[in-house]
Amino acid sequence: MKHAPLYEALINHSHTNKWSFHVPGHKNGHIFEERAKATFQSVLPFDVTELSGLDDLHHPEGVILETQQLLADYYRVKQSFFLVNGSTCGNHAMILSSFNDEDIVLVQRNCHKSVLNGLELAGVTPVFLHTEMDEEGGYPLGVHLQTVKEAVERYPHVKGIILTNPTYYGMQQDIQDIADLIHSVGGIVLVDEAHGAHFGLKDMPISSIHKGADMVVQSAHKTLPALTMGAYLHVNSERVNIHRLKHALQLVQSSSPSYLIMASLDLSRLYLENLSNDDINRILSQAEGMRKYIDSLPHLKVIKAPDRYQIDPLKITVQSDRELSGYELQALFEKEGLFTELADDRNVLFVLPLGTVNDSTDLQRVLKKVSDQLPRYNKREQTEQSLTDVLQVSRLSLSYREMRGLQAKSQSMMDSEGQIAAEAVIPYPPGIPLVAKGEQITSKHIDEYSLLKKKGARFQGITEDHLIYVFDHR
Amino acid sequence: MKHAPLYEALINHSHTNKWSFHVPGHKNGHIFEERAKATFQSVLPFDVTELSGLDDLHHPEGVILETQQLLADYYRVKQSFFLVNGSTCGNHAMILSSFNDEDIVLVQRNCHKSVLNGLELAGVTPVFLHTEMDEEGGYPLGVHLQTVKEAVERYPHVKGIILTNPTYYGMQQDIQDIADLIHSVGGIVLVDEAHGAHFGLKDMPISSIHKGADMVVQSAHKTLPALTMGAYLHVNSERVNIHRLKHALQLVQSSSPSYLIMASLDLSRLYLENLSNDDINRILSQAEGMRKYIDSLPHLKVIKAPDRYQIDPLKITVQSDRELSGYELQALFEKEGLFTELADDRNVLFVLPLGTVNDSTDLQRVLKKVSDQLPRYNKREQTEQSLTDVLQVSRLSLSYREMRGLQAKSQSMMDSEGQIAAEAVIPYPPGIPLVAKGEQITSKHIDEYSLLKKKGARFQGITEDHLIYVFDHR
Repeated sequence: MKHAPLYEALINHSHTNKWSFHVPGHKNGHIFEERAKATFQSVLPFDVTELSGLDDLHHPEGVILETQQLLADYYRVKQSFFLVNGSTCGNHAMILSSFNDEDIVLVQRNCHKSVLNGLELAGVTPVFLHTEMDEEGGYPLGVHLQTVKEAVERYPHVKGIILTNPTYYGMQQDIQDIADLIHSVGGIVLVDEAHGAHFGLKDMPISSIHKGADMVVQSAHKTLPALTMGAYLHVNSERVNIHRLKHALQLVQSSSPSYLIMASLDLSRLYLENLSNDDINRILSQAEGMRKYIDSLPHLKVIKAPDRYQIDPLKITVQSDRELSGYELQALFEKEGLFTELADDRNVLFVLPLGTVNDSTDLQRVLKKVSDQLPRYNKREQTEQSLTDVLQVSRLSLSYREMRGLQAKSQSMMDSEGQIAAEAVIPYPPGIPLVAKGEQITSKHIDEYSLLKKKGARFQGITEDHLIYVFDHR
Repeated sequence: MKHAPLYEALINHSHTNKWSFHVPGHKNGHIFEERAKATFQSVLPFDVTELSGLDDLHHPEGVILETQQLLADYYRVKQSFFLVNGSTCGNHAMILSSFNDEDIVLVQRNCHKSVLNGLELAGVTPVFLHTEMDEEGGYPLGVHLQTVKEAVERYPHVKGIILTNPTYYGMQQDIQDIADLIHSVGGIVLVDEAHGAHFGLKDMPISSIHKGADMVVQSAHKTLPALTMGAYLHVNSERVNIHRLKHALQLVQSSSPSYLIMASLDLSRLYLENLSNDDINRILSQAEGMRKYIDSLPHLKVIKAPDRYQIDPLKITVQSDRELSGYELQALFEKEGLFTELADDRNVLFVLPLGTVNDSTDLQRVLKKVSDQLPRYNKREQTEQSLTDVLQVSRLSLSYREMRGLQAKSQSMMDSEGQIAAEAVIPYPPGIPLVAKGEQITSKHIDEYSLLKKKGARFQGITEDHLIYVFDHR
């Protein structure tokens, strides 16, 4: 009989706890805003604190230690940790525990903003690696081994590399050769695998943790049935300093971690264990069926994986052959009650369930209904390159230490060519910075921003009237 | 009619979202571990992501901006922010946005570990201020104005102060004079008000944000009916650099913030607004009644507030006149299904609800039942001083920068006198470090640790067999 030790402990506790004179203030649900009480009632008794028998995430010795060991066994790694502040805090902890001030670290340029924030917190010196672009999709893929070789030659004292694999769009490469190269010069290999929590499953791509990565972070909430902000961190090598890692993990997460989120992390691992081969085959054939169906519709096509890359079967990137942006296409789907994960200037991304799609026949009708509306748009001419190219290997214009002291001023993105950004400019989703904090703003950045804005992108780090912060260091 | 804009937007969204092809992986609850599905079902449709109409915590322009403005209006401050990673991340953000490397910052020694972690992240130079102790309760209170004056004289270039007010035990002092002194030398005043989220209410103590603090952090989940990890940050002066603060806030929190937690923050503010004067009077007289009843029981007494301090009416600290530790007393209550917030070597802390206590007559029976068991313990002789005294004004033995590069080794706490701790040793709760990272371990620390351990304290940063990490810098 498979177990969920933490969830079971919470159930037992809820039977014994008659009077709560402890936090949280909702007191097992006795106290809550009336209009929402009925909705939240059933989970509130599980939203507790470090009470007797419920262990302590920051010093696990009981049920949390037990469920983290079950997690490590399931993923076949040395050690696993629950995260309650998302992959964000996992990326921070990996970086803070692996590097010291001014260490040279290779970083895939199309990394998530949490990686850049982690670099800033650790005060390291990032060396950005150019990311290959997908011709058809116009989105970033991964780093080519040759680029890593070039960087290692130029920076022989490199302390490690941070890769993003798979990408938001589900494109994964085998990083073994890159990992071997970095290890050969004494570096550590960290992988943001936020989009690959389901890669432990049969017939799914293989997790980077079994392809040379020393540490990976996975967003359990993205592809597994966990609550938002629930994530996993896996360690599988002796290169990781576990003492520093544990210190970093208690630093980047609340000292009152959510038992609701932790219970859902416990239950998500159990959900994976309970999936039979038949279940997995059903999920995969359902995904394949949907992929084929969308591709068969007029004016819609599904992006394929390029050479050297393998696509996550649960990710479908859709494009139309018409003159409408991904944002506009996404809006057409939403009108039909179909909400997708992400739109960019030309694509719409579907994240498929690790289970059965509801009302799938009705769903096909809706997909067709959207494709039937497309002829009223003009045919798309050549598709323009859509993400800013960066140099093969590049540096920030200022170190994080230099930036800390500086004042920032706000001004229009349009007049900021040559200035140094004091805040990353981030189209969201996918949350991959167009301009990184400390990077010099180029005319290409400005053109790219205008293009994305025109097509309907949402941005962080810049106001509706194009105001951004730049360093005032004259 | 009072509103909860975010919660209402989530309800509307849940009616339109038929197919979820976005994160989280539970897809509005269609997919979840079977044995827990019924429990979580009702809230899962609200555990969503940044979809159309649901705004973006890290760049609020819609319903999140609106509810944060309602929050600021309720607390009568310039600006308020939702936090989803607890007061922990609020303390980090306050510190990261207010100070630069090596800035001298005054810090109340009995601060929460998240304050110390924030100091480490920011790389500032903390100057610890001795905390007054409560004779009767044996726990820390606050900093005396005289101590702050002494510190300012010794460090005239001080950039600010970080206070903890009220304390975990609900003791609050008026910080106006301290704030005026720090402002007079150009410093900023930050207050960890984690335990005072309800201080906006009539007849409750007045929040430090209206007593000279520039910024305060409040754990909404501690005393308001919010989900665990939900907290508020309030800004009420021009000394705060809002641009740096916003940058820090997106840095210390998940890029996928929990809409469940945010909805509960929205609903908690509404809960406060809906409390009538009669409700508040009922809550206060109920608390007063319980305080009096416990105090009337043989062998139990309730700790009073000393001079210059005001006690939070919702906090009751109980002590027995017998030879049993707070941990043992807490266990007696738990046997009766009554779970308290915290025990220390001599006290048990009750956190009362901001609403009605269930089965209050039965509750009195249980309290009496516990007090009736106490005569079998010996009468307590003199009560020993219980928290390590620190110098009036003290520094760490190493700067955070110096610590970063150093290796750490693990050894027994018992043989570590004179060594420098590489990890804080923290009795939990309350989470106030006995030894801070970078502090030299004294024989007093070791005695205090042994005493607390003997009495049954739980610790972070040290193993069951007393192993801790110290810096190996010979």
